[in-house]
Amino acid sequence: MSPDHGTLEAEQSFERYLAGRAALVDTYLDRYLPPESTPPEKISRAVRYSLFAGGKRLRPVLVLAAAEAVGGTVEDTLPAAAAFEMIHTYSLIHDDLPAMDDDSLRRGRPTSHVVFGEAVAILAGDALQTHAFAVLADPPAPCRLSADRRVRAIAELASAAGVGGMVGGQVLDLEFEGRPVDAATLERIHRHKTGALIRASARVGGIVSGASEDDLSRLTRFGEEAGLAFQIVDDILDVEGNDASLGKSAGKDARSGKATYPLVHGVSEARRKAEELVSSALGRLKPFGAAGRPLALLAEHMIRRSR
Amino acid sequence: MSPDHGTLEAEQSFERYLAGRAALVDTYLDRYLPPESTPPEKISRAVRYSLFAGGKRLRPVLVLAAAEAVGGTVEDTLPAAAAFEMIHTYSLIHDDLPAMDDDSLRRGRPTSHVVFGEAVAILAGDALQTHAFAVLADPPAPCRLSADRRVRAIAELASAAGVGGMVGGQVLDLEFEGRPVDAATLERIHRHKTGALIRASARVGGIVSGASEDDLSRLTRFGEEAGLAFQIVDDILDVEGNDASLGKSAGKDARSGKATYPLVHGVSEARRKAEELVSSALGRLKPFGAAGRPLALLAEHMIRRSR
Repeated sequence: MSPDHGTLEAEQSFERYLAGRAALVDTYLDRYLPPESTPPEKISRAVRYSLFAGGKRLRPVLVLAAAEAVGGTVEDTLPAAAAFEMIHTYSLIHDDLPAMDDDSLRRGRPTSHVVFGEAVAILAGDALQTHAFAVLADPPAPCRLSADRRVRAIAELASAAGVGGMVGGQVLDLEFEGRPVDAATLERIHRHKTGALIRASARVGGIVSGASEDDLSRLTRFGEEAGLAFQIVDDILDVEGNDASLGKSAGKDARSGKATYPLVHGVSEARRKAEELVSSALGRLKPFGAAGRPLALLAEHMIRRSR
Repeated sequence: MSPDHGTLEAEQSFERYLAGRAALVDTYLDRYLPPESTPPEKISRAVRYSLFAGGKRLRPVLVLAAAEAVGGTVEDTLPAAAAFEMIHTYSLIHDDLPAMDDDSLRRGRPTSHVVFGEAVAILAGDALQTHAFAVLADPPAPCRLSADRRVRAIAELASAAGVGGMVGGQVLDLEFEGRPVDAATLERIHRHKTGALIRASARVGGIVSGASEDDLSRLTRFGEEAGLAFQIVDDILDVEGNDASLGKSAGKDARSGKATYPLVHGVSEARRKAEELVSSALGRLKPFGAAGRPLALLAEHMIRRSR
């Protein structure tokens, strides 16, 4: 997956795009959330600790890039982008809890429950979920999203985050821990646990921008394929990576008997599958022309990343 | 607080009203939620286990009665009523966790984490919060609530459930556990932990029914006073009650050094305060005339209850 000279240039210019968009999301989150000093301070600090822990902001940038593909504006899309990052972060905090995956390290830093204790970590996750729906329901100016698009975005986010999506996937993941899984079960876990939210990121970018049904279908397929590719690459990195570049204990998923793509299919088949999915995802974007370019680069970036 | 003959009759007729409204909420929740057999089954069962654990449905009935006071319809209000019960139930599941209040009994039954394990209990709470916003964002027919009223209701619910409300109150409660609290701190905990959601129940009943600003202010004050009275009575019952009628370990809050009203003010002053609050709350309802009667009876019921 090492880029040749041509893609290296595109990749460097894309890194700037990605960094710029991520900075917009960071600034938005920082302005939207109560300051650290807001009482009770402990929870305000815990919420910010995890939200500003060096996350790559892939989901919110995906929301922004999907909106861009169909002519949406950054102002009207940022609340949705922020909401997806908040839901993602809440899920990481809860997944890391001792009762769940029991992780003490995330993105190279101690996890929330290690720093703030389990009770506050649970509540910080709860609060982040609430914030996500709050920002979409009542986004501050200059966002001028209609109430109709706001409820559609909320419904979409809730559907992807709930039992039929992310939470259901986490339950499946826990259920199959330490048990052999077949390829179909593994794909089901991935589609729920991470796939649903990535798919919804692309869809909501379209929804807040008033995408046509056809464009929304394209974004949906794109999100499904890119999402699964992303998770496969995540699995590969877990097998191949080291603690420093991953920011978490490498090989941890494999050691704990978690179902992973390389475990079921082997590394080279997993890599081939990821490439195939991204190639198909890129094909979906053709009708968007130049407007779909950031989304395409984002998908390529997702499988070329090293962490 | 034992009722005289006149109020006894009103109370009996009100018990029928309350039971009827609670049944409407139960039926709605049952139809809305995925059946127990929905995969992953474990989470579907856990969600239903706590939601149908014999709760009194006070919050959803409050939403319905507030809507009734300002001319709202049951059809358009039931999604909001259900959402409040789901948020309330999620908070109970998480509060009962070993890392929080560590309760093994709730409403006379083993708590969620005792039955399903901590991981699933955390996820069931998470899922219920998501469901709450989902039902408000996309309520099934025959609800015909406008998108505008839906986003207002979602924003209101989120604000009451988040760091500025319920979650913030739980953090405060944990922070002051085992420490002496003054009257002001105690009231702050109560206003956040239980008060915010009860206040919002009354407000959202008004919002979904298109209440005027004046009527919304009345419902707000009513909700604040009734909510605080409710919590004071809860504290008194904890001191005086027994395990059987409470469905939880009596005196538990007092033993764990939790801040309670009778602890800070004494039982008789606590009772006087609750009566005073409800009396003031009832006064707010006068302009609603007969339409406000269910809301008035509900407030009286809240302080006369024995569990």
